[in-house]
Amino acid sequence: MVGSMSTLPAPPYYVVCFSSRRKSGDDGYSAMANAMVELAQKQPGFLGIESVRGDDGFGITNSFWTDEASIKAWKAVVSHQAAQRLGRERWYEDYRVIVAKVERAYGIDRAD
Amino acid sequence: MVGSMSTLPAPPYYVVCFSSRRKSGDDGYSAMANAMVELAQKQPGFLGIESVRGDDGFGITNSFWTDEASIKAWKAVVSHQAAQRLGRERWYEDYRVIVAKVERAYGIDRAD
Repeated sequence: MVGSMSTLPAPPYYVVCFSSRRKSGDDGYSAMANAMVELAQKQPGFLGIESVRGDDGFGITNSFWTDEASIKAWKAVVSHQAAQRLGRERWYEDYRVIVAKVERAYGIDRAD
Repeated sequence: MVGSMSTLPAPPYYVVCFSSRRKSGDDGYSAMANAMVELAQKQPGFLGIESVRGDDGFGITNSFWTDEASIKAWKAVVSHQAAQRLGRERWYEDYRVIVAKVERAYGIDRAD
């Protein structure tokens, strides 16, 4: 699930790219991150999530959604919002979120 | 650069999300990966690249581009194409590329 490749439908769908640099120490981060993934999976419009973090604290999480409304609904969920607020102070030195509409996709089996 | 957060303009721009699972062993992979990053940086329309790979071989590389034409031009560059062909056989168990148009972006300093 996280840390492996999601199975996705044909475009169009949406991707949310979350790039971040962690502060050192866990400080409740792992529990929050797992809860956020479980929460995302339960949301309408959720298609998949992929996440990697390097030893240097820099990480990328790409989550996939059917439409923008689903992304906005996910963002509005209270516990997610709470994690975002706490994250600013406790867990992240820096982060960036982008929301993008997937127009094309191809895999290992096709030249394009 | 890779492994750190890119500085990006305001949307719209494009993101290419490359998810992959490596085979074990380097077998020329690191040299190719570095060459690909250097090549991307020289391309017109290149905005930035962020890349992380976990110890389990799963990795995400998000690269950022001004427009679709820049992405297509990058893909068409001969050495990049060669790396893609070789990658299928030598370096990757699996990979997926998506091309998406960034509509919104926000960072640690803004609620949205």
